[in-house]
Amino acid sequence: MHSGPTLVRSGLAAAFALGLALAATPRDAAAQEAHAGSHQHGAGHQHDPSHHAQHHGDNPIVIAIHGGAGTIRRGVMTPEMEQAYRAKLEEALRAGYAVLQQGGTSLDAVVAAITILEDSPLFNAGKGAVFTNAGTNELDSSIMDGATLRAGAVAGVKTVKNPILLARAVMEKSPHVMMAGTGAEAFAAEQGLEIVDPSYFFTESRWQALQRAKAQEAGRPVLRDEEAEAPEADAPEADAAGAALESAAHDVAFPDDYKFGTVGAVALDRHGNLAAGTSTGGMTNKRWGRIGDSPVIGAGTYASNESCAVSATGHGEFFIRNVVAYDICARMRYLGLSLQEAADQVVMQRLVEQGGEGGVIAIDRQGNIAMPFNSEGMYRGYVDRDGNVVVEIYKD
Amino acid sequence: MHSGPTLVRSGLAAAFALGLALAATPRDAAAQEAHAGSHQHGAGHQHDPSHHAQHHGDNPIVIAIHGGAGTIRRGVMTPEMEQAYRAKLEEALRAGYAVLQQGGTSLDAVVAAITILEDSPLFNAGKGAVFTNAGTNELDSSIMDGATLRAGAVAGVKTVKNPILLARAVMEKSPHVMMAGTGAEAFAAEQGLEIVDPSYFFTESRWQALQRAKAQEAGRPVLRDEEAEAPEADAPEADAAGAALESAAHDVAFPDDYKFGTVGAVALDRHGNLAAGTSTGGMTNKRWGRIGDSPVIGAGTYASNESCAVSATGHGEFFIRNVVAYDICARMRYLGLSLQEAADQVVMQRLVEQGGEGGVIAIDRQGNIAMPFNSEGMYRGYVDRDGNVVVEIYKD
Repeated sequence: MHSGPTLVRSGLAAAFALGLALAATPRDAAAQEAHAGSHQHGAGHQHDPSHHAQHHGDNPIVIAIHGGAGTIRRGVMTPEMEQAYRAKLEEALRAGYAVLQQGGTSLDAVVAAITILEDSPLFNAGKGAVFTNAGTNELDSSIMDGATLRAGAVAGVKTVKNPILLARAVMEKSPHVMMAGTGAEAFAAEQGLEIVDPSYFFTESRWQALQRAKAQEAGRPVLRDEEAEAPEADAPEADAAGAALESAAHDVAFPDDYKFGTVGAVALDRHGNLAAGTSTGGMTNKRWGRIGDSPVIGAGTYASNESCAVSATGHGEFFIRNVVAYDICARMRYLGLSLQEAADQVVMQRLVEQGGEGGVIAIDRQGNIAMPFNSEGMYRGYVDRDGNVVVEIYKD
Repeated sequence: MHSGPTLVRSGLAAAFALGLALAATPRDAAAQEAHAGSHQHGAGHQHDPSHHAQHHGDNPIVIAIHGGAGTIRRGVMTPEMEQAYRAKLEEALRAGYAVLQQGGTSLDAVVAAITILEDSPLFNAGKGAVFTNAGTNELDSSIMDGATLRAGAVAGVKTVKNPILLARAVMEKSPHVMMAGTGAEAFAAEQGLEIVDPSYFFTESRWQALQRAKAQEAGRPVLRDEEAEAPEADAPEADAAGAALESAAHDVAFPDDYKFGTVGAVALDRHGNLAAGTSTGGMTNKRWGRIGDSPVIGAGTYASNESCAVSATGHGEFFIRNVVAYDICARMRYLGLSLQEAADQVVMQRLVEQGGEGGVIAIDRQGNIAMPFNSEGMYRGYVDRDGNVVVEIYKD
């Protein structure tokens, strides 16, 4: 059996030292570690200075976001609904891109974009989180810094307005990567994050979706009595802005089987650093404290300057079993595949073979963007390295 | 942007179909998927029939287990202590191996070994779980089936006697992969698993370890008053067998900084199927609902007939950031490395560079075994394909 040297107990300091090393010479480190130069097809390509020259002689900046994948068909969406989604996606994109343009970090850009999506009732994250079987909203989120491999994740929080901010606090203000439940909420309070009454997360459309899911499960139509159980009357303290957004959401009938909604962002900053983040309310009617892929580092979120940054959305169980976000990075780094090839293999081949529905957004250090999804649609958008702003919903 | 065909919503059925495909021709699928035959160095090697012939003309059977890695030095262990650990490790090994000899599945073997370690107060899992900062015991566990990629994981359960059984129930009896907290406990009760009073997990030595951790944190020596706070008096309902085991544990002074204890098992059965499982009480003095790598599929546990089965133990945060268990499998499959090379790269190079202390046990479908660790010791053992039974603790 192999064994080795005892480590000095200075894990965090060492991690930060590694971070600097990754940011400086990620490919050298990878090549050295892999002991297999022939597999490092990407090495020369990665350092091609022509890409850098494309953007004012500086490193390229890029951001991509998603607002969930699922059965999103043109026939189901009204023009107003579609416009509401497009407008919010563009707002989030531009907020994140503004951070990058000002020389801000990819972490700040990811957080700027995701908090806007969390604060909207349109997406299954933050304000618009779906309901559990118990009629509660339990939120999951994670974030990762590609320069240092630091990561933060939270699962099952009910009172934190912006779970992505809590995930970031876990990463930056604690020695841990993952926290759950009331313990995570206590940490959020210690960190001074905004705590809300659970009723903040009530939206009529999500409540009705839960009633439909329960009725479908029981094999019967939705009863009026159940609709009347909506606890809206218990939430008079919802602020005016929230009420207005909620009202807008009422006018938008969500696609009926919109089960796998999630929001996420990936970004590349001027310093050449990648970051990724994901936030979700999970699955409508979930029970037993189910945790999906969103707070699982490697499955729903991964970022490394050695390869790429990925945020996933879809049927979380399949994404966990296949370690989707990390596997895309691993196929790039170990097989020498392009970002698009790696993402396509995982999402369009491996997940499709298993019946695992969903998609990812992914970027690499050259500013390449890949957004494959195997569902009917995925709310998504990006600003590419030439500054083009694109927002899309359907697959064609 | 790439997009593709809509999936039929029959995920579980498809997953099981995949399982059969993986079990039948894992290498063919891998080669087809990778689109890079030159990287599949392992393909021919994997099918070498000479290995199979070594064991009565049948597939080899192998099991390996660990009881945690950490600062385990000869000077700290009494001969009695060492004997107690060796005896329990061998008991667990032989129980798992007996399952394999009788033609049982690798999943059954993993569960047989881990339940014995969970029921012992010697290891930080089940009965011997360490205490959180709040003075509670919060248990995590996960399991994965290499033939089907099905997986189950639980985090933060306080009343389930054998968390590995709950992880397996999540995998086999629910549509989910991961459950946490009281929701997971409710599922355990529904499934008829053994529920215990939280006082079942009280052991004097773990309680004293918490007091030492708190005193160290506060920069002062342990006070007698704090030792007197031990809630042992509140646990008169502990059964006689438990009390006897507990008494045995009192006689064994645990190494003082035994922070990262975990138990785990990996097995290869006559059918050629791999499985892996892990169970832990987490870190002494943990707070904020901290979750380590043990219940994170990809980090603490992974199994795929395409590559290998891995169970990890160590400073969980580093194992999550590096997706350790899956990365070993990915390096085997994508770089064509041997099991030992892949495990060494991750544990002895990558984790060492970051200051991430710990180790793994790993096996592949030929019955090769790798157990690298970068800490001073790791409780571990294996039965190899020739039937040799080996139990080890230190690095030399």
